Formats: sequence, C-alpha cells, structure tokens
Amino acid sequence: MIDDRKEKLRCPLSPVSFLNVGISGGYWGRRVETVRTVTIPLEYEMNRKTGALASYQWESERDKDRPWRIWVGDVGKWTEAAAYCLGVRPDRKLAELAEHAVHEVIRGQKPDGYLYCNVTAPARRWTNLRDLHELYDVGHAIEGAVAYYQATGKRDFLDTMCRCADLLEANFGDGPGKQRGYDGHPEVELALVKLYRSTGERRYLDLAKFFVDERGRQPHYFDQEAAARGEDPKNSWTHRFSPGAPHLCFQAHRPVRQQDEAVGHAVRALYLYSGMADVAVETGDEELLAACQRLWMSAVHRRMYVIGGVGSSSHGEAFTCDYDLPNETAYAETCANIALVFFAHRMLQIKADSEYADVMERALYNGVLSGLSLDGRTFFYANHLTAYPKGGNAASDHVAPARQEWFGCACCPPNIARVISGIGQFVYSTSSDGLYVHLYMGGRVKCQVGGTQVTLKQETDYPWKGKVHFTLDPESPARFDLALRIPGWCRRPNLRVNGKVTSVAAILRSGYACVRRDWAKGDEVELTLPMPVERVEAHPSVRANCGRVALQRGPLVYCLEEVDNGPDLADLFLPRTSRLTVEYRKRLLGGVAVIRGKGFRRSRAGWKDQLYRSTRSRPKAVGILAIPYALWANRGTGEMVVWVRGG
Amino acid sequence: MIDDRKEKLRCPLSPVSFLNVGISGGYWGRRVETVRTVTIPLEYEMNRKTGALASYQWESERDKDRPWRIWVGDVGKWTEAAAYCLGVRPDRKLAELAEHAVHEVIRGQKPDGYLYCNVTAPARRWTNLRDLHELYDVGHAIEGAVAYYQATGKRDFLDTMCRCADLLEANFGDGPGKQRGYDGHPEVELALVKLYRSTGERRYLDLAKFFVDERGRQPHYFDQEAAARGEDPKNSWTHRFSPGAPHLCFQAHRPVRQQDEAVGHAVRALYLYSGMADVAVETGDEELLAACQRLWMSAVHRRMYVIGGVGSSSHGEAFTCDYDLPNETAYAETCANIALVFFAHRMLQIKADSEYADVMERALYNGVLSGLSLDGRTFFYANHLTAYPKGGNAASDHVAPARQEWFGCACCPPNIARVISGIGQFVYSTSSDGLYVHLYMGGRVKCQVGGTQVTLKQETDYPWKGKVHFTLDPESPARFDLALRIPGWCRRPNLRVNGKVTSVAAILRSGYACVRRDWAKGDEVELTLPMPVERVEAHPSVRANCGRVALQRGPLVYCLEEVDNGPDLADLFLPRTSRLTVEYRKRLLGGVAVIRGKGFRRSRAGWKDQLYRSTRSRPKAVGILAIPYALWANRGTGEMVVWVRGG
Repeated sequence: MIDDRKEKLRCPLSPVSFLNVGISGGYWGRRVETVRTVTIPLEYEMNRKTGALASYQWESERDKDRPWRIWVGDVGKWTEAAAYCLGVRPDRKLAELAEHAVHEVIRGQKPDGYLYCNVTAPARRWTNLRDLHELYDVGHAIEGAVAYYQATGKRDFLDTMCRCADLLEANFGDGPGKQRGYDGHPEVELALVKLYRSTGERRYLDLAKFFVDERGRQPHYFDQEAAARGEDPKNSWTHRFSPGAPHLCFQAHRPVRQQDEAVGHAVRALYLYSGMADVAVETGDEELLAACQRLWMSAVHRRMYVIGGVGSSSHGEAFTCDYDLPNETAYAETCANIALVFFAHRMLQIKADSEYADVMERALYNGVLSGLSLDGRTFFYANHLTAYPKGGNAASDHVAPARQEWFGCACCPPNIARVISGIGQFVYSTSSDGLYVHLYMGGRVKCQVGGTQVTLKQETDYPWKGKVHFTLDPESPARFDLALRIPGWCRRPNLRVNGKVTSVAAILRSGYACVRRDWAKGDEVELTLPMPVERVEAHPSVRANCGRVALQRGPLVYCLEEVDNGPDLADLFLPRTSRLTVEYRKRLLGGVAVIRGKGFRRSRAGWKDQLYRSTRSRPKAVGILAIPYALWANRGTGEMVVWVRGG
Repeated sequence: MIDDRKEKLRCPLSPVSFLNVGISGGYWGRRVETVRTVTIPLEYEMNRKTGALASYQWESERDKDRPWRIWVGDVGKWTEAAAYCLGVRPDRKLAELAEHAVHEVIRGQKPDGYLYCNVTAPARRWTNLRDLHELYDVGHAIEGAVAYYQATGKRDFLDTMCRCADLLEANFGDGPGKQRGYDGHPEVELALVKLYRSTGERRYLDLAKFFVDERGRQPHYFDQEAAARGEDPKNSWTHRFSPGAPHLCFQAHRPVRQQDEAVGHAVRALYLYSGMADVAVETGDEELLAACQRLWMSAVHRRMYVIGGVGSSSHGEAFTCDYDLPNETAYAETCANIALVFFAHRMLQIKADSEYADVMERALYNGVLSGLSLDGRTFFYANHLTAYPKGGNAASDHVAPARQEWFGCACCPPNIARVISGIGQFVYSTSSDGLYVHLYMGGRVKCQVGGTQVTLKQETDYPWKGKVHFTLDPESPARFDLALRIPGWCRRPNLRVNGKVTSVAAILRSGYACVRRDWAKGDEVELTLPMPVERVEAHPSVRANCGRVALQRGPLVYCLEEVDNGPDLADLFLPRTSRLTVEYRKRLLGGVAVIRGKGFRRSRAGWKDQLYRSTRSRPKAVGILAIPYALWANRGTGEMVVWVRGG
C-alpha cells in the first residue's frame, strides 16, 4: 500500500527514550514520585473496584453489567504509566500489580487474537466502529504493551498485542474482502506506528496509514455501517451534531488531507493529528505533514487556552470556532491537553522549532498538571479558567469546580498518570550531531550523539528560578551541538559556557541556542532565563478576555483563588501600574512562588438591595495574591480566575 | 375551603380595563397597529398550518401526529390577543378569524366539559399533570374566553370555559374522592381568578386557592402520580434535575408559602407568583402575600437582567442563583419577561409603589418588546444580552441570535401579541379617590374616579422625549389625586399644573407625584422627565458585568450592534470621560434616538498569528453608536452587546 519510492521524512530529531532520562527531585521529581507511590496504586485499586481490570474476561452478551467501553484502554494506559516508573526505578510492589494487570489482558485475548471487553459475540465485532471504541482500546493496550516491553524486556504483552494487530491487519484495509472501516475515536493509528517502531513490522505502519487515509472518505464508512445495522444514517447523532458536515465530531467529515481546522472532539482530534504526524514521518508523506501543520495552526494559534488546553465546549467535548475561548465553561479536558503535548512532541521532532516545545511546556506546566491534585488522589476532567462554584451549573462531575475521586468515564486519571510518570520522554532529543534540551528539570540523560555516548546532568530550581546548570560527560571528547531551548516567554536569556558569557542571539536557530564545540568531561554550561512577571494579553478577537490579563512567570500561568483574595473575584481590577512582586513561600502548596500586587474592588457602600444603579461605585484598594494555575483547588472549593480584569 | 371571616385584602388600586384605554400613535401605538394588522393574522395562519387550531378536534390516541401539548394554550393566547384589538377597534376580518378560532375550541369540548388536545381517552385524563400541561392549556383558554367576552360581549366561549372549570372543580380539591393534583406548569391559577372576577362564581377562586396551596405539599402529588403510572418517582427527570429539592423546576419543591427564592422554570415561576398574588388579594391572605413579596425580592433584586428579563439558563429555562446573569447565554425567555410584567402589575395594585411599575416598564420596553421584530413577523424566544453569531453555539432556534419565524414550541409569539395588543391594561389604575398613571404613552383613558367619570388625554413623544402633557375632562368638577409615576431612572422631574410649577418632592408618595385638587374640564398637567444618558452599573456580585456599563436613557436600555460598530464588540471600551450625545434619527428603525460617544479598541498591529502575547496593545479611538436594545437584530445578523466595557 505504501509507495516504497518515498523515503522516511528526514526528521531532524529523535526523542531520547524515557529509559535513559532520570528526573531527580525538584518540581517534576516530586510529582513523579507522588504518581508512582500514590496515584498509580490508587488507580489500580479503582480499576479493580469498577471491574475494569476484570473486564477482559467478560463473556456475556447481556447488556446489563456490560463492561464500560473504554475500560480496556484505561487498563492499557495504566500499564503504560506503571511501565514508565518500572523502567527507571525498581518497585517490587508495582511490578507485581503491573504483572497482574498484563496477565488479565493476555488471558482476555480470544484464540484468534481479538481483544475488546465490550463485544463478545463474533458476529457483533466491528459492526459499530463509530461508537464503540473497539480499536481505540486496542490502541491504548498496544501503547501499554510497548512501554511494558521497553521497561521490563518482557515480550508476552507485546506478543499478545501483535497477534491482535495481526487480526486487525487481516480484517481492515482496502484489499479485496477487507473491511474499509476505522475507529470513531482515533488512537490506534499512533499506537500502530509505535508497534511498528518497536517490532519493525511494516504491516502495522501500513494499517495505520490505511486508517488515516480512509477516514472521512465517501461513500462514508460510518453511514454504510449504520445502514448495515439497520439504522437510518441521516438520522444518526453524528449527522445531527453537525448537520452541514456529518461526522465532524470525530474528524471524519472529509478526508484528513483536506482538513484545515481543528474541529470536533478535542481528544480525538489531537490523537488523530499525532497519528497523522507519525504516519507522515514514517512514509515520507509531505502532503499529510502539510495537513498536520495547518491543523497545528488552527488548534494552537486560534483555539488554545493560555493554559495549553483545547476543546472550548462541553457540548461534544469539542473545539468550536476561532477565538471562542470562554473561561467559565472551558472544557479543556485533561486528556485533550495531554494529547496536545503528544502532537507538539511529534511536530517538534519533525521540525526542531521551539514553538512546538513552547506549547508542550505550556500544556504540561498548566493545563495538564492541573488535572491532578497535589496529593495525587483527585482529578480534574474539565479544566476551567474561571471557577464560580456558587453557580452550581455543573451538570456532572466531569465539569465540577473541584477535583473528583473518579469518573464514570475515567479516561483522564490514567492518562495524567502516564504523562507524569513518563515525563522523561519529552525532555531531550538527539539529532545527527546534537543534543536538544526541550524542558528544564533536574536530572540526568544518557544518549548517543553522533556516535558518542554522552551523559548530561541538569540542575535547576525551575520553574521557580530561571537558572539551569548543565554538566557534560561525553565518554570521549566530541564535537556536537548542545541545543538549549530559549522559551518564547523569555526576553533576555544569558548563557555561560565554562564560565564564559556567550551571545545567545548569535547562535539561536529556531528558538534553540546551539552551542557547537568540542565537549569534554566536566564542561559546564549555565543558562539563565530571567522570569519577570508578564501580563499576557489574548488576541483582540478572544471576546472572553478583552480588558483582561493573565499573569505568567516563566512557564507558569497564574490564577487568583478565593481563599487568598476573597469572593467575587470577577470584580477585582489589576491596573497596569501596579507593581507585581514574587515571593517564594516554602510552606504553601508544597513550596511555591506567589505573585503579589495591588488592585481594586468596587466598594459595596450603598448597594444593599439594588441590582442596578447609575451612581458610580467607589474603588477600594486591595492586595492581590496569585498562585500557579496548576495548583489551584488544592485548598478546598472556591472561586478562581486566570484572566483578571486589568490593563 | 376559604375562611369567610377573612376579607378581600384592601387593595388600593384597580387596573383600568383595556376597553377604556385608547393608545394613539407614538411608540406603542405603532407597535399595537403592527401586531393587529401583521402579527395576529400571521399567527392565525401559523396556528392553521401547524394544526394547532384544529387540535381541539383531535380524537385519536395514536402517538404519531398527536397535537403538541401547548397548542390549546397557544390558541387561547391568540384569542386573547385578538380580543384586545377587537375591544377597542372594529376589525371585521379579525373578528371573523377570532370567531372561527373560538368556534374550534367550543366544538372541541367533550360533553362533560373536558377540553385538552393531547389526551382523548378518558382513562388518561389527569394522569400526568406533571408533564402534560393539561390545566395550563385550560388556563390560557380561560384567559382568552374572558378577554373575548369583555371585548365582544359574546358569552359562548366563556360558558364553554365555565363548564370546563366546573369539571375541574368537580374533580380537583381536598374533599373526599377528589384528586389532590395541580399542574406542572402554573397558569390555571391566575386564569381561574380571572374567571371568578368575570363571573362572580366563588368556586373558581376556591379552586385556584386549592391549586396554589396544594403545590409542593408532602406526600408529593407528582411522586404519587408517577408511581400510579408505574414509574419510579425517584428516577424521574424532575428528581434528577434538582437532586436536593425534587420538583424545584416547577416550584413544587415545597409549599409555596415556604418559598423564599425564585427558582426553576422562569415562566412557570412568574405565572405561579401572579396567581398567588391574585389569590392573596381575593382571600385576604397576608401570609401568601408575604411569600409573593419575598419572591419578588429574589426575582427582581438578585436575579433579573437589566432588560427586565428573567431565567438565566437554557438548562430548564430556569432561574439559577443570585447574581448569576450571564449575557451571552442569557435565556430571559420572552414569555418569562412577559410573566414578570404580569406579576409586577399585580403587585402594583396591591401596593401603589412605583418600584413595581418601574420593573413593569423596564420589562415592557426592553426584554418584552425585543421579542418581536419591527415588522411584526419574527420572534425571539430567548433574549440574549450579548450576541456572537459566529460562535454557532445555538443548539436550537430557541436560542438563535436572530428572530425566528416560528418555533416547535411556539409559546412566545401569541404571548407577545397579547401583551402588545393589550398594553392598555397596564397603563392606568384607579384608587378610591385617585387616577394613577403608570406608563407614559399617547392616548386617552375613561374611568370612574370616586364616583366621577373622568377622561384623561395623554400626549407625549415618550420614550424619545420626557415631556408628557395631560388634559383632564371630568364629567363634573371633582377632587381627586392625579398620581403620576416618577420613574426610578429620573432624577429631576418637573411638574406644572395649569402652567404653574409644582414641587414633585412635596407630593411624592411611594414614587408617585400625587396632585390632589379640584379638577375641572380643560385642566392641564405637564410632567417633564429629563432623560440624560445614564451609565448603569450592576451589583458587584454580578460577575458577568464587572467592569462594564449599560447605557440607559429614560426607560430604554441601549445596545451596540455590529452593523454600527464593527465586529469584536467585546473589545470596545467606553471610558467614563467620554461624553455621550443623543441624536434622533428619523429614518433609522422607524425613528429612533441613538446614543453616540467616543471609545477605544485595541489596535491589531503586530498580532497576526499570535494568540497570546505580553506586549501591550495600543488603544485606537473609535466612535460608538448605540440603539435601543428592543430594536436590535432588525438589520440582519451580527454581534450585539448590552454591557460595554467601561468606567
């Protein structure tokens, strides 16, 4: 199927495997540790309680008590999270849990390779790809199996998923007698490319490419499939959701190469775009890559929250239109923000441009990390940018103004676990003759750079302080680039190489300061990224944020909480002239830099029972205190705003 | 049932019947004329086309094609609207249409008096009062019958509805063998009091009081009724809607006397409160009146839009919580705003306080009149205070950013027709020795004041100009109060009696300037209500409006439209220092006073592809033009804002 004359795209970067990246202490180290010791065991227990773990053994076709359709995927994601921990640090207890989970999956596979909890009768297989998540689940199980194999060297889970992928490959495709279907929820595409990369079996890549290319073609598979089930396709929910463009909700309204705008369910969109980028790279498909770039522009430059979140509306958990970024009803599902990280990370390898890493950092530090409480026990599904709990408008736990212990559809908890435990994979890349540092966090990386094994130690108090200290240790002296990302938020970076000031501007390439020299053991590089508090404005067409600023310091977007600033946060005003100071508070939220300033509120004098009046209210000076957005809602339920009224 | 020792409340005011009020020309006269000649005939035609008119003849129990549950009520409201026209002006064509509509209703009555289109099998009668609107429809038909009788003197429709009410009276109540039910949608309560007032039959009042008092009592009727239908009451939508307070959506969560907050479906709430006020007055029930006063405070002082609209959320078309008044997702259903007028009008008669008339005027001039296009042909169901049509978030025609030709549930069109055609009934009241003028509009009233027949002529260009000229014509000289409402928005009223300046402050009683003297034919009173443009603020807890002002002039709330001000209205800023001028434009929107001023927008320079940046945008001076809110969306679809950013 794949044109063999085309080569793999010349992709400048390759990510350094999580296996070779150590994260030690600091901001991320502590979160990784909480996830390993609290979140992952807790999620195992929840998967046991809900029945997700045992769902692979489901045999009945009764609808009552049928396993929830994404449970297989949830266990897959959980296994992936556990694998990221096990790959870098022995943990006997966790290894046992993972072994048991993997065993449940393996036992659940049918003799022919089929694996999915929600369908048992063979005649019902692949008859409702639109709604059932049948391949989505396989995708997450594949991702889990690949990570588990990488972390433990054990092949059994990987072999299981290969057999499952072989079954799919035998069934789906454009060859004679094959089913031309694809899943309503993209995920299996990117997973199949992972499986291809892990096994070298090109048929998995071919199948991924088939799924990508078939999507949205006419005659429409989902309509044919619905008709075969005896339904009236025109009357399906997916026609009604977007009458002018049926199946838009899962990016199947037209072939993916013809898509220009990020639309529909945001998680599906970003998983799809990630899979498209993978296929484009592996098959040398410039046209597909161009579609990825257009979709990036749409998602990131016109439809992304400042916290690195996507999906403005709970209606369909979806993208809406350009610049439509309401704060109080923001959906910005944790899974969608995570999927944005995946897409950004893939685009970054294709073009070593710091814009991609900037977005990855923005999402990780803000809209992703916000999904998990500091104690690792509760989760946000939707990530609002304004909370007003009194409103009581939350129709479900999924849009609650407080983190929840679990969800009926619990996709986010294992997703955030695998991102945090696997954070190492996003930090470094290598090129043919360079080592790229995308993210700043204490730890160590070991990798091959142009044939030389290099160890790099990173020491920093980031994101609280902007100084990052690197110590190099190549196995032998070698000439290569050390490429350090200069974040988009940083105006005046300073660089010293072995103590000598070096001009960043002179060596800046696409947002990376590329220090090229002969490196030897003990060489030191010090990057300083000054972090003044910035007042961020949104584009004038973002109507929700006109007249408002968001406070950002370094990679962190800040917010104001009721517990620090009193209720009625909407009435606070922060003048442009107010000086903003930073204070590190050791005892607050596990240690945090807060921002303080002077603002105003309206005096309540004379309001009483009035709801409207034409007398102007007097302003009253008040202190303002902001904390990092990702850490909000760790001190009870209350109001919160990211975008503060101000000049 | 009613304690006969209690007397009717001493109610200071009685409204002057629409039959005795002429509206000539001017702002309202033209709208009344459009409704009579365009809207009412058009609605007749729609009622014919949809099947609403013929729905009374429905005989089948098939679910397919079953008449829509409120069609009987819609025809009732239409008849009422037609009656208000016919009562003050002959119109042969309209009289024929009304005669035909009335005949359809009469023909539809079952031999025992039953009347409702959606239920035919006697065994199904009154088995789902919670959902079916079975008594709601009877209520609107009664209101139509009373108005038709008053306007034409023809008794047949009234007799039909008396037979229907008799059937209800025989079936419902707390006596032995009677059904203790009441309707999920209040309306029949206020209608039964109208029927009582029109016929003198006290049993109708008793029944109204029963319905009011039974509402929300335990054991809960709607739960018993659901169980009798074989449903699980705890699993009903009305439990799920408000888990802590089942049946809150229709104000049946607790007995009405124990209610303090305006909650649930806003139309139902205000119809209920109106019925409660009626029953309180007629039965001398101070406790019930106190509940009305508490609910007034809640609805008007903490939950009302500046346009005189209520019901903040489309979710249940309902009230939400105090100060929760979002602009873009405002529901403020035309019917709810109309129901607010009804409640205000009733409270005004009970206590002659201009606060009630102020709210009535606010709603009529803004959130009610906005419901109908200038040409009388299209209707708003929801009345947003911010429109952003690009958002495309409108899930249905009911919340569209443009007026619609009709709706699946078309309650609003006949409601606005009956309010505009019956506007005369809200203008004047009489007391034992006074004539009260609540609203200012050109025309003439004839009424008895303390035994003397008085004719009063009112001449004015209101709401464009604040001067109102009255000429009195008592049949013989008589001493009484001419009580002129001084609107809450007016700071410096001027009064001249026969040319002589009279101090308003000295004769002000509860917001009315009470001119007491011996009046003789030809006496003249001139009231001048200066109308500078006011910048209105909302209470600091109204988070949607912090940092914003609404422009108001006289009774009119203004808005900015895209057609006059360009797109991205959210970015406009109107400084406190900007002088606002008023210009009368004869050719615009049928003649309208616009407000002009100077504001600012952010310059787009340098934005390009950026979504966020920390460079401050430069302000750019722009002209601002505002038109009355009620007249928006008469020049195509575009953005609109009521609350402009500004000091």
